[in-house]
Amino acid sequence: MATLIKNATILTMTEESWMDKGYIVLEDNRIQEVGSGDYTGTQPMEKEIDASGKVAMPGLVNTHGHAAMVLLRGYADDLPLMEWLQTKCWPIEDKMTEEDIYWGTQLAILEMLKTGTTCFTDMYFHMDAVARSVEETGIRAVLSRGMIGFPQKGEQAIAESRAFVKKWNGAANGRIRTLLGPHAPYTCPPDYLKRVVELSEELNVPLQIHLSETSGEVEGCMAEHGCTPIQLMERVDLFQRPTLAAHCVHVTDEDIDIMARYDVRVAHNPDSNLKLGSGVAPAVKMLQKGVTVGLGTDGAASNNNLDMFEEMRQAAMIHKGVGLDPIAVSAFKALQMATVDGARAVFLEEKLGTLQAGAIADLILIDYNRPYYYPRHNLIAHLVYAGQSGDVTDVIIDGKLVVENRKVLTMDEEKIYREVETVCNRLFS
Amino acid sequence: MATLIKNATILTMTEESWMDKGYIVLEDNRIQEVGSGDYTGTQPMEKEIDASGKVAMPGLVNTHGHAAMVLLRGYADDLPLMEWLQTKCWPIEDKMTEEDIYWGTQLAILEMLKTGTTCFTDMYFHMDAVARSVEETGIRAVLSRGMIGFPQKGEQAIAESRAFVKKWNGAANGRIRTLLGPHAPYTCPPDYLKRVVELSEELNVPLQIHLSETSGEVEGCMAEHGCTPIQLMERVDLFQRPTLAAHCVHVTDEDIDIMARYDVRVAHNPDSNLKLGSGVAPAVKMLQKGVTVGLGTDGAASNNNLDMFEEMRQAAMIHKGVGLDPIAVSAFKALQMATVDGARAVFLEEKLGTLQAGAIADLILIDYNRPYYYPRHNLIAHLVYAGQSGDVTDVIIDGKLVVENRKVLTMDEEKIYREVETVCNRLFS
Repeated sequence: MATLIKNATILTMTEESWMDKGYIVLEDNRIQEVGSGDYTGTQPMEKEIDASGKVAMPGLVNTHGHAAMVLLRGYADDLPLMEWLQTKCWPIEDKMTEEDIYWGTQLAILEMLKTGTTCFTDMYFHMDAVARSVEETGIRAVLSRGMIGFPQKGEQAIAESRAFVKKWNGAANGRIRTLLGPHAPYTCPPDYLKRVVELSEELNVPLQIHLSETSGEVEGCMAEHGCTPIQLMERVDLFQRPTLAAHCVHVTDEDIDIMARYDVRVAHNPDSNLKLGSGVAPAVKMLQKGVTVGLGTDGAASNNNLDMFEEMRQAAMIHKGVGLDPIAVSAFKALQMATVDGARAVFLEEKLGTLQAGAIADLILIDYNRPYYYPRHNLIAHLVYAGQSGDVTDVIIDGKLVVENRKVLTMDEEKIYREVETVCNRLFS
Repeated sequence: MATLIKNATILTMTEESWMDKGYIVLEDNRIQEVGSGDYTGTQPMEKEIDASGKVAMPGLVNTHGHAAMVLLRGYADDLPLMEWLQTKCWPIEDKMTEEDIYWGTQLAILEMLKTGTTCFTDMYFHMDAVARSVEETGIRAVLSRGMIGFPQKGEQAIAESRAFVKKWNGAANGRIRTLLGPHAPYTCPPDYLKRVVELSEELNVPLQIHLSETSGEVEGCMAEHGCTPIQLMERVDLFQRPTLAAHCVHVTDEDIDIMARYDVRVAHNPDSNLKLGSGVAPAVKMLQKGVTVGLGTDGAASNNNLDMFEEMRQAAMIHKGVGLDPIAVSAFKALQMATVDGARAVFLEEKLGTLQAGAIADLILIDYNRPYYYPRHNLIAHLVYAGQSGDVTDVIIDGKLVVENRKVLTMDEEKIYREVETVCNRLFS
């Protein structure tokens, strides 16, 4: 059951360097061995992949998003945030059926697989459809049913979240992990959040939540609760549970201290925050204080793609420019945020996001024979500053080849486009 | 001699809309006709291109760069600006021969052609090698020999610039245009700039110059001359000549008024300005005051690619995020900056950058059958926010097919990689 990947340029992400030529042996869903030069062992191989002219690196981890929002991609851009949400996004989302979410998620997974993402995080609704998509397509995912804590809706969210976690946590050979997904402090009152914390203990799963995305949200929280959203979360004991906080754009130094103290993980979504006019998260300060920061695309309605190469590049660029500091976030740190730090941010096991013996075999191959990868001064800089996701040729997840030579083996691309068109013809009519 | 492009989704850039299916007729180096639906004329066609599933749009215009700096791509990143320039870039540039510049420019043109750029702007040295590259490869370019106004070097720059303009302006069927390229106020003293202005009048060519790229530059100018770089340029009568100003990151409202009054054209380089920690140019204010703003990549040492799709996306994103204004720069404006406004910025004729009868036939085809271009809500948003340059399949420049199905017909890709490697082995030894 072993697979040999040979002649690859290898970026293991265990250190800031790479092998110009090396090999990787996979056994079942794990990496058995990574080495430089040619493989000289005697183990019989079921499959050999010649990665000449290609880079092998860990698959990318998208730490925040709403996959089926691809159905809204390009539907409403260049609008003020509240007009965008209230007049465009929400009315369409209200009409979405489980079938719509299924096809939307299929389209999102198709895009993510083709662009090198091997694990994504989701917070949406009709989550059975999402889990089913993940199970079928071979991708890895960390899923939560979005919870809005208002009467009735709040009870339904708790019941559905409990059922979802019980049904899906650890499913698909462990490719599916579940979280609880209280949406945000402004949609979940403190008493409701306390119940979610209890549920998180009961089910033994972490939490993810949107925090401090906009200045308006922080102002509202200060007016209502007399403290910042981060302080409020500390107050309701949310941070007693492992927490993934999305955005954290408008956080104070004191907030960051709290986040560091409780080991709150952050999903940094630089492009979505720019596009919605929310601002630039102080990710450099978070990193300096030891907070784990992963990268996310957010939903495609505010991005408008699910391209982790673009998020890596933006993470390495934006803090230099806005902070007037050309050494703010290095290319290697951006790669870490998109791989090993991202895996930690979404509570996956330690070795995910690296290529080393014992790690789960989630990895991608990249066509390195493109003009912008020459001359060969620095692989790490090339991938982050010059690369693009269209260069991903092969994707292996949980030891299985899911994308081969740019073709997704587990999906029918043309059928997905047709079904999405049918869904949209109804939703947007 | 006519060519028919049929079954294309067409973005003419003459208005904020597109045709779902249309055709384009090319005759010699001009567009003869653009229409919706099927071509029903009777003109015999020498060649037919079936663009089913593809978008046709004007080629992209890169308004600022130093092409051969691709040789430095990834050589030195994540360093403070002055350390980067003084210890990394300049020592290597000092060693560059005309042959090095030739191969560097070949690599840059290969990358630009493959990523949809049909016209680029250059300011570098050994410019004969650059012009030769442009002539051979079929791309369009606006070229200037960089001028440093210190003793001896300044005289040589004036002599070489005069010779360069006389030799190359209008060459290659008009694909080559020349400018004078005084480098910057801090490398060209006022008296020298006055001589460059006279030379520009004598040769009847416009000028390009770096202005107000960093806060340090502006502070230095204030200390030395008691005014901003923009004010200094007005004082030395530079703006009496048609001027393309690169960067303009640290300009005041008064500076922008001056720029508007003299119709100074701006090359906005959002990614380079971010990566070097220079800041974010107030492009929104410039646009509001009617200044023509094009987009540029700058050299690949500070980007690190020559990808105009990334600059479009960044131009549409960064001003929303930094200005906390989700309607700051629309997707359509970003497309205009990369096409028709860019053409105006580099003083090319009015219809360049659009697809309409009478315009020069510089256009690209884009594979529209990618997951991130679904559902089909909005072509303009999709291209800017979700698209990538790797989707460019065909490029026509001056009426000639230069890239066909991702292959550059005028260049030997593998040979260029080999020659660049040889050049770099020597330069970086």
